[in-house]
Amino acid sequence: MADGAALMRNEDGIAAAVGILKQQFGERFHTGSAVREQHGHTTTWIANQAPDGVVFARSTDDVSQIIKVCATHKVPVIAFGTGTSLEGHVNAPAGGISIDLSQMDKVIAVNAGDLDCRVQPGVTREALNTHLRDQGLFFPIDPGANASLGGMAATRASGTNAVRYGTMKDNVLSLEVVMPDGAVIRTASRARKSSAGYDLTRLMVGSEGTLGIITEITLRLQGIPEAMSAARCSFPSVEAASKTVMAVIQYGLPVARIELLDTMVVRALNAYSKLDLPEGPLLLLEFHGSEASVAEQAETFGMLAEEEGGSGYRATASQEERNKLWQARHDAYWAMLALRPGSKAVTTDVCVPISRLAEAVSTAQEKAAELDLFAPIVGHAGDGNFHASLLIDMDDPSEIARAKEFVSWLNDMAISMDGTCTGEHGVGQGKRPYLIRELGADTVSVMGAIKKALDPDNIMNPGKILPE
Amino acid sequence: MADGAALMRNEDGIAAAVGILKQQFGERFHTGSAVREQHGHTTTWIANQAPDGVVFARSTDDVSQIIKVCATHKVPVIAFGTGTSLEGHVNAPAGGISIDLSQMDKVIAVNAGDLDCRVQPGVTREALNTHLRDQGLFFPIDPGANASLGGMAATRASGTNAVRYGTMKDNVLSLEVVMPDGAVIRTASRARKSSAGYDLTRLMVGSEGTLGIITEITLRLQGIPEAMSAARCSFPSVEAASKTVMAVIQYGLPVARIELLDTMVVRALNAYSKLDLPEGPLLLLEFHGSEASVAEQAETFGMLAEEEGGSGYRATASQEERNKLWQARHDAYWAMLALRPGSKAVTTDVCVPISRLAEAVSTAQEKAAELDLFAPIVGHAGDGNFHASLLIDMDDPSEIARAKEFVSWLNDMAISMDGTCTGEHGVGQGKRPYLIRELGADTVSVMGAIKKALDPDNIMNPGKILPE
Repeated sequence: MADGAALMRNEDGIAAAVGILKQQFGERFHTGSAVREQHGHTTTWIANQAPDGVVFARSTDDVSQIIKVCATHKVPVIAFGTGTSLEGHVNAPAGGISIDLSQMDKVIAVNAGDLDCRVQPGVTREALNTHLRDQGLFFPIDPGANASLGGMAATRASGTNAVRYGTMKDNVLSLEVVMPDGAVIRTASRARKSSAGYDLTRLMVGSEGTLGIITEITLRLQGIPEAMSAARCSFPSVEAASKTVMAVIQYGLPVARIELLDTMVVRALNAYSKLDLPEGPLLLLEFHGSEASVAEQAETFGMLAEEEGGSGYRATASQEERNKLWQARHDAYWAMLALRPGSKAVTTDVCVPISRLAEAVSTAQEKAAELDLFAPIVGHAGDGNFHASLLIDMDDPSEIARAKEFVSWLNDMAISMDGTCTGEHGVGQGKRPYLIRELGADTVSVMGAIKKALDPDNIMNPGKILPE
Repeated sequence: MADGAALMRNEDGIAAAVGILKQQFGERFHTGSAVREQHGHTTTWIANQAPDGVVFARSTDDVSQIIKVCATHKVPVIAFGTGTSLEGHVNAPAGGISIDLSQMDKVIAVNAGDLDCRVQPGVTREALNTHLRDQGLFFPIDPGANASLGGMAATRASGTNAVRYGTMKDNVLSLEVVMPDGAVIRTASRARKSSAGYDLTRLMVGSEGTLGIITEITLRLQGIPEAMSAARCSFPSVEAASKTVMAVIQYGLPVARIELLDTMVVRALNAYSKLDLPEGPLLLLEFHGSEASVAEQAETFGMLAEEEGGSGYRATASQEERNKLWQARHDAYWAMLALRPGSKAVTTDVCVPISRLAEAVSTAQEKAAELDLFAPIVGHAGDGNFHASLLIDMDDPSEIARAKEFVSWLNDMAISMDGTCTGEHGVGQGKRPYLIRELGADTVSVMGAIKKALDPDNIMNPGKILPE
């Protein structure tokens, strides 16, 4: 599934840049194969394409200096946070220099009065939340992995809390970005809203390092709610669970999380985590607010779920039980892998209008069965976003072929429902063929014109998002 | 204050385009001076710069056809919705063709299950809400004027509800846009979130017709809340009122509206609307939610306000009293004008981090007094956004000069506080000098590069946002 065949390696330029960066960064510049491979794609079936060198940057100046060297010699530059992306974002199909930002990990400022903070891109979301806890604040976006905030901004990440708190696009106030010529720009002020010119913040969020490298992020924060509770409810069918989700959204119930686990996942969890969940589709929820509001939300949800045949409804405000419930959600990945020991999990990501969620999930289950594939499904149901985790025997070429057929079919189905080929993972290399099917050639060529205007030599993360 | 001196009129091109459009659009093409002037800027002290002709478009095809004619002859194209913009957005400094979109006023589809709808750009926000009411839905963005949704998207409008529901950037799911070459693109699917490529939706929102013309908008909707209540509370000082706002935001109280009116506005309202509000800064609020939640929010607010010396606190769930309270806010403009009969009100717009709001408002009051100006202030306090409405005797050149000094000073002050020169009105012609002071030359040149890439002949609303 690796891509980038049409991209040519600029051998002379790479050799020159490697030489200069070695001089400039000394021990912080690495060309050993282990480090290089670790900075290519490692998480899915997309082949690893290692960069030619890795620099551990410590400042915006470092990043600007590296980019200037690469710009001079027309050498690709790829930003690297924690390497948890799923669509080949950190691969180097034409070689080049990986800038590892993990050492730019300072929380620069927290403005409690304005509920915002300024961080370097290598700060992970867990590190930020640890830093904030004492001040009664938190940053809500949770994509699962302990990703870096720079990477999360670059891929427009979201996750379980997006139904209430939005995605990275909604929670980034401003960015500092090093552009393809090494210039350092700030995209916006710290005001909570602005109509001052083109929304460069949102253009950079989700641009996957193809327009510039994010070196500082100003984020909106939330106060830790007075109360939280968690709940779970089983349903007779995916349709009943999805109808409940729609009812919740239409009712305006401000759920903080509403996650769908299909029967296969529930079975896997029962086996892996020694639970006794009813064997059927499950919704896992979290409510945030005042104590009274959280109690009311839980009660209202129970009522809405009952109307759709929900059963085994349990809500709890106890932190221990809450953690236990959500642990199940976090265990889902390992539980699924345990369904088929030795298999590799490849997680796909699509998002459809909520009214189509039930149909999309059910049809996906049928298609997987038809292709004789294991494809347990979990979804951020409140957004219509779901993932099928294909458990693949990587030694079976026929199964790999069928899995590829499934992924392709799933993307096309989501697109046919006026949904998207990626709700939160980004395009990277893996979703490039679908972008044009989703948005059309004219739209993608507008993206291409912007890319060309800002990065005329195509040095910023080439081979990602756009066709060559 | 009119601008665009550096832009040259392309007389030959304009003559050619006018001839062709006259043929193609017959009675729907107007060149009479009354219609032309009405399609230039009419709302503030910025001079009217009329287009050479006005076409009333009825379809995306019409818009595409007009743009193709103008592209061929390198003639400016300016989109016109309701003409309520405040910074000269609809002016034609180099002449050209105004496309009036008010007849593209169809609500194309409402998807109640997905809480979204698709509308033509000429639908006004009030017309949309009238259309939606029977289905228990509403569209929350309320900039005051009954603006068109196309214009609201183009200027990234917001208003009183933004503290809870966000701005146009948060409520547009997808756009259909006619590009500067006449190509029609769709920026996104109807999924509630997506990571599929560059965020062209957000790039177009707030681009003020300089990158393309919006011909369809897919909007997020909200369910009409089960309960609403309104409240008012007076404060001993702007600082006390602002501290209460900060406490509300930090507490996470989900207020739907929290508006600040300064003492001068309160006095004006007492006189104009025969009210007996205490003469001091006032906060007006609205709470949305379940009945219990609304009651709890009102109670919590009362508690937070009391801590800051709030007095005369009244909350009401009665619709009649609610309307009466908010009528006062809507009357504010007329009440202020009545403070100084015969004067013209020129409303400026800045937005600062909330922690700086008290200082910004107080300093602005002092500066206005120092310059001997009437400048009553109202603010969307929950966002740190406020407007000073200068009441100017337009026959007094010295007063006009002092007013201009004030506006310039106010923008610079907001920028110095890491705020923005426009929270919601947009840049247009009037705020262009401040954009570069706010974001720096490198940032503005990135905007310029995008503009140049998409509109190389600078035909889309030239003389707006960017320096020539």
